[in-house]
Amino acid sequence: MTVGILRRCCIKLGKVRYYSRESSSNSTVHTISITDPTFRLPDRSTILSGIQPTGTFHLGNYFGAIKSWHDLNNLVKKSEGNSSLYFFVADLHSLTVPQDYQMLQKQRLEAYASIIACGIDPQLSTIYYQSCIPEITSIQWVLSCFSSMGYLNRMTQWKSKANLKDNANVSDENALGKVKLGLFGYPVLMASDVLTFRATHVPVGQDQSQHLELTREVAQSFNKSVGSKYFNDPHTLLTPTKKILSLKNPLKKMSKSDKEPLSKIFITDSANEITKKFNKATTDSIEGKLTFDLENRPGVSNLISILAAVKNKSIEQIVIDVEDFSKKELKEAVAEAVINELEEPAKKYKELISNPEYLQKLSDLGTEKARIVANRTLKDVMRLVGMSSY
Amino acid sequence: MTVGILRRCCIKLGKVRYYSRESSSNSTVHTISITDPTFRLPDRSTILSGIQPTGTFHLGNYFGAIKSWHDLNNLVKKSEGNSSLYFFVADLHSLTVPQDYQMLQKQRLEAYASIIACGIDPQLSTIYYQSCIPEITSIQWVLSCFSSMGYLNRMTQWKSKANLKDNANVSDENALGKVKLGLFGYPVLMASDVLTFRATHVPVGQDQSQHLELTREVAQSFNKSVGSKYFNDPHTLLTPTKKILSLKNPLKKMSKSDKEPLSKIFITDSANEITKKFNKATTDSIEGKLTFDLENRPGVSNLISILAAVKNKSIEQIVIDVEDFSKKELKEAVAEAVINELEEPAKKYKELISNPEYLQKLSDLGTEKARIVANRTLKDVMRLVGMSSY
Repeated sequence: MTVGILRRCCIKLGKVRYYSRESSSNSTVHTISITDPTFRLPDRSTILSGIQPTGTFHLGNYFGAIKSWHDLNNLVKKSEGNSSLYFFVADLHSLTVPQDYQMLQKQRLEAYASIIACGIDPQLSTIYYQSCIPEITSIQWVLSCFSSMGYLNRMTQWKSKANLKDNANVSDENALGKVKLGLFGYPVLMASDVLTFRATHVPVGQDQSQHLELTREVAQSFNKSVGSKYFNDPHTLLTPTKKILSLKNPLKKMSKSDKEPLSKIFITDSANEITKKFNKATTDSIEGKLTFDLENRPGVSNLISILAAVKNKSIEQIVIDVEDFSKKELKEAVAEAVINELEEPAKKYKELISNPEYLQKLSDLGTEKARIVANRTLKDVMRLVGMSSY
Repeated sequence: MTVGILRRCCIKLGKVRYYSRESSSNSTVHTISITDPTFRLPDRSTILSGIQPTGTFHLGNYFGAIKSWHDLNNLVKKSEGNSSLYFFVADLHSLTVPQDYQMLQKQRLEAYASIIACGIDPQLSTIYYQSCIPEITSIQWVLSCFSSMGYLNRMTQWKSKANLKDNANVSDENALGKVKLGLFGYPVLMASDVLTFRATHVPVGQDQSQHLELTREVAQSFNKSVGSKYFNDPHTLLTPTKKILSLKNPLKKMSKSDKEPLSKIFITDSANEITKKFNKATTDSIEGKLTFDLENRPGVSNLISILAAVKNKSIEQIVIDVEDFSKKELKEAVAEAVINELEEPAKKYKELISNPEYLQKLSDLGTEKARIVANRTLKDVMRLVGMSSY
């Protein structure tokens, strides 16, 4: 809306092409990759990311999001730039689709415990439940008054979540009837998540990058209307996405809701369970050297991907390491590596989940730290829209 | 959505027909008129109403809303039924249309002072700025997850405020581009205003009654989803609407934004100003007895309406009183009655507006009282959707 004339530039990143949006006026690149060798986290950066509470993490969550949070946690720990980290359980977002609320209650706690179990430091980072920060929804209301229905209509996620086709839009009476306002307006809550903490860098998967673009549009629209440069444009921080597939049917993603227990590995699984699940993992009957070929050898490729993720090596390096292995040897190697990787998280998770009082203390600390910042932003926002007695 | 089979019954009320919605299952009449002789306010009722901050009240605001608040204030004062009153400055609603935010800041204060100046007792009633109660927007988010886009699309107010035709809908690309999410979702914020305080009776003009129906739908949809009868259906309380017209062009409503200073009377006008404005009021050149005829004698009829409102008499009674008056005598009678009526509010308003610290104290008291109740509802709502650690 207000970003002026835009040029699009394309950065080649591994095999995936990511599009970055560049403003012609100030040449700010909005999308950066954490693996880019020129990437430096500026001093006083604010990194923010959230995850929906689907319960205890499985390998897909672990390598999809949390491991990159962990990397960022360590990056900030090592730097001396006074950067801040905000990680949250996006429980308010969960309400946009039907839920079993008793189950949700349990899953929120499990997700919170999982974040800490996976090595995010609750002293260094601010870790909170989104629902405990009422400022986020207050700011969401204000931002919704600067968010175009037309722009929201072009988002794709509400369509997929309402089981509608990608080309559906609210012009479709059938679509309108199925969709709740919360689902349609979800990207504005996400904008508020980001802007409430004045985040500078938001690590997201590519499916969320259109919501970050909307966040920038809303921030600019707000700034223009109130005549202030209050909100900065948050950067999209592309983290290397490790897509982990089902161990039993490697044509689909590893998913908590998969009814086949052998398809998924939880961070809480015992060494025996992990060994058993990898032993029974689906591979293929192709003989000879092991190769990475997602199309023709999805099972073997998935195991290679997992090993690469654990060892923090490239796929190419891992292929060199394992090409002469039998499939059984590959399974054993992956199982061993995963058992090793998850030993600490599993131990920590069990400790945490059996101590709800301590977890409550940690989340109270997170709430307290988060609300100091959120309250300051809310006051500023309210003052800018003429409500300074707030 | 969930109200089951509905019967519609029509209550004749003066010259206007109001429709009341009746559930066949429990025969609860949702729309009641305060002038209905059978109307009794049940014990422990909660009455809630809000007004948008357009500044110091004029006669239109005074007789359109505030006088009925005053009547309700007195009704509750006299009763011993422990009923509660909540009146608020709907400043968050103001954000749904473009604003001069510095002006809005001033108008919020003026509206707050006007409410108290017009006789609403800040000890008996809870009087607050909507923007000071963050629980309202938190509950609004939850309710938005139970609010159908299809139902919201059928509301008319977002269309008129976006300068669209009544038959416009979000299927119209042109409409989508013009409309902000806040404007479209405004009825859900109104639902939250009502449900946050678990209001039992909501005095509204007829233009708002469709939003109260939506409130009931959303409440039922929430109840059904969480498996609890938490929210009761709030009743629409129809108050006799006194439509006050411009003194210079009695074909349109008296409006603050009217550029003609002689068209409107503020509660702060001096006796001289009031006398002058009524003297210069537009009437007609019809000779003989004065009659009430909105179509052919809008100016004279408007003066009769104002006199009826001040004297708390019916139009018919006033016509008998004044039919032999000259137009000049009618103007003098109206001016005298209005001067008398506004003497106390004008005096009180000047005292209040010159004492911002005292006003701040009053609004702090209102905020404190309102948040005790709002926080209890938010906790309940969060618990019901699986977030009990809130």
